[in-house]
Amino acid sequence: MNSEQLITGILQKQQRAIARAISVVENRPSSALPLLQSIFPHTGKALTIGITGSPGAGKSSLVDRLAIHYRQTLDNYVGIIAVDPSSPFSGGAILGDRIRMQALGLDPKVFIRSMATRGNLGGLARATTDAVAVLDAAGYDKIIVETVGVGQDEVDIVKAADVCVLVLVPGMGDDIQAVKAGIMEIADIFVINKADREGVHRIEKELESLLSITERSDTWVPPIIKTVAIQAIGIQELDSAISSYCEFQQKRDNAKFEKRKHVSEQRIIEILRERLLAKALSKALSENELTLFAKEVASHKRDPYSIVEEICARLNL
Amino acid sequence: MNSEQLITGILQKQQRAIARAISVVENRPSSALPLLQSIFPHTGKALTIGITGSPGAGKSSLVDRLAIHYRQTLDNYVGIIAVDPSSPFSGGAILGDRIRMQALGLDPKVFIRSMATRGNLGGLARATTDAVAVLDAAGYDKIIVETVGVGQDEVDIVKAADVCVLVLVPGMGDDIQAVKAGIMEIADIFVINKADREGVHRIEKELESLLSITERSDTWVPPIIKTVAIQAIGIQELDSAISSYCEFQQKRDNAKFEKRKHVSEQRIIEILRERLLAKALSKALSENELTLFAKEVASHKRDPYSIVEEICARLNL
Repeated sequence: MNSEQLITGILQKQQRAIARAISVVENRPSSALPLLQSIFPHTGKALTIGITGSPGAGKSSLVDRLAIHYRQTLDNYVGIIAVDPSSPFSGGAILGDRIRMQALGLDPKVFIRSMATRGNLGGLARATTDAVAVLDAAGYDKIIVETVGVGQDEVDIVKAADVCVLVLVPGMGDDIQAVKAGIMEIADIFVINKADREGVHRIEKELESLLSITERSDTWVPPIIKTVAIQAIGIQELDSAISSYCEFQQKRDNAKFEKRKHVSEQRIIEILRERLLAKALSKALSENELTLFAKEVASHKRDPYSIVEEICARLNL
Repeated sequence: MNSEQLITGILQKQQRAIARAISVVENRPSSALPLLQSIFPHTGKALTIGITGSPGAGKSSLVDRLAIHYRQTLDNYVGIIAVDPSSPFSGGAILGDRIRMQALGLDPKVFIRSMATRGNLGGLARATTDAVAVLDAAGYDKIIVETVGVGQDEVDIVKAADVCVLVLVPGMGDDIQAVKAGIMEIADIFVINKADREGVHRIEKELESLLSITERSDTWVPPIIKTVAIQAIGIQELDSAISSYCEFQQKRDNAKFEKRKHVSEQRIIEILRERLLAKALSKALSENELTLFAKEVASHKRDPYSIVEEICARLNL
């Protein structure tokens, strides 16, 4: 499949072309540039939904049920990107024994992909955004980005979505506060999943009091939706909440544009950071030399800061 | 306090100087360079202990108890760096109502610091490593780095420690597997905390079977230590396990050096990434222009990739 065939394939929603393109943005960002430039004019139509929450909150089931809902009620094309930064070593078991493999995996209008960081060059947020762009260009109507937990990368990923959903569960320990602290300001909708368990009332009260002291940049009041994802309870309500937020955004002058501008700024910086490092490594630092420098630092012969200055000087920076 | 006084203060273990220096590496990395270069020759003596695990595992209590143990049995100077990437917005409540404020906070030989990402420029792993370097140069014997959860940043942070401890608790859901998947290969010691709870046997068996299929780069068999941190149970055993691992490392030819070399390589790349971006932003892209570019991307007039290429071209890269 050459580059032109790849682009044609994406625009025709061919899953094989989409999968190939995402592998390229994930593993060979430099060679993905022409591809991403070509598809850029076709992007911007999908609704992207970011879903995050701590391990054990049942995000995967919720995402699966929401995808099924969009398939059944709207006949939407649905893309799912499951970001799993915790598996840089073992590879993700994220597509394990879950309903998505049974109900969703065979649906030709559903595309599921698991992303994980590989190697040392980072760029998970950038790679995820690019993967979303591929699905967006292909004409997928809804793109759900699911992230495990709390890292900065994941906050960045969720922030880039059109609507952010934070999933909580009853009966978590005190540390859940730490999770919430980081993401309260960016969540547009809160979901209390496993709402058939004890402790729903308590976590709802906690959440309401946290929300009352959270400052948002707009007048939206984030709703709290109760779900039991594995029984498909509350999914319609979640869909309605997502729609309401989108209508709210559209009514506000420039609100959506302001958000996209902010996201674009982040994106330029993220791509710039990655490209600069890639160029510096290819132009001013061979792998051998990096090993030699690392030896000098490890044996305390030289500090890493002066080495970095030397590399920057080679690039006339 | 000028730069020379700051360095003298650090080498004399003055907490005020240490705190000031860490603020500089955290908030103004460019101006921290001379400082970090000056203290570099004094580093490399401390034992750094990375402690990670999912929210609710009781890491903080464990860290506090271990710190008290080192104070009481060895009269060590102990530094604690609590990394909390989940609070880029609200600021960390991580130093809340915990025993560290009561028992440790007043001890002049204990230094406690919470780190969180700020702004968009990332660099949490780099800032944490630099903070550890400050404490190391000051002559702190043990430096405990505590991270919440599972992000790539946090894996990087824990990998940089001399010994990595993963804390689990009985009765976590299936998603705990995801957490473990990312970090199994780098954990040198496993702790099952809250070991007075139901389910200890089950998680121990699960862990053993996971460990049996995990490939390590050495012959070390990671021990499983059971603790009840809030009652100070199992802390002596954890201390012994840490010592055993250090002895194992010292016996193996070059093992510690190989690890430090690898860590140094990561560190050079991390510092390089940050410096390159900072230089590019100061030399080739004003804030106004970044906003203009972001507007063009948000309105789909231009793709972010060609903008980044233009910025690189300005720098002759």
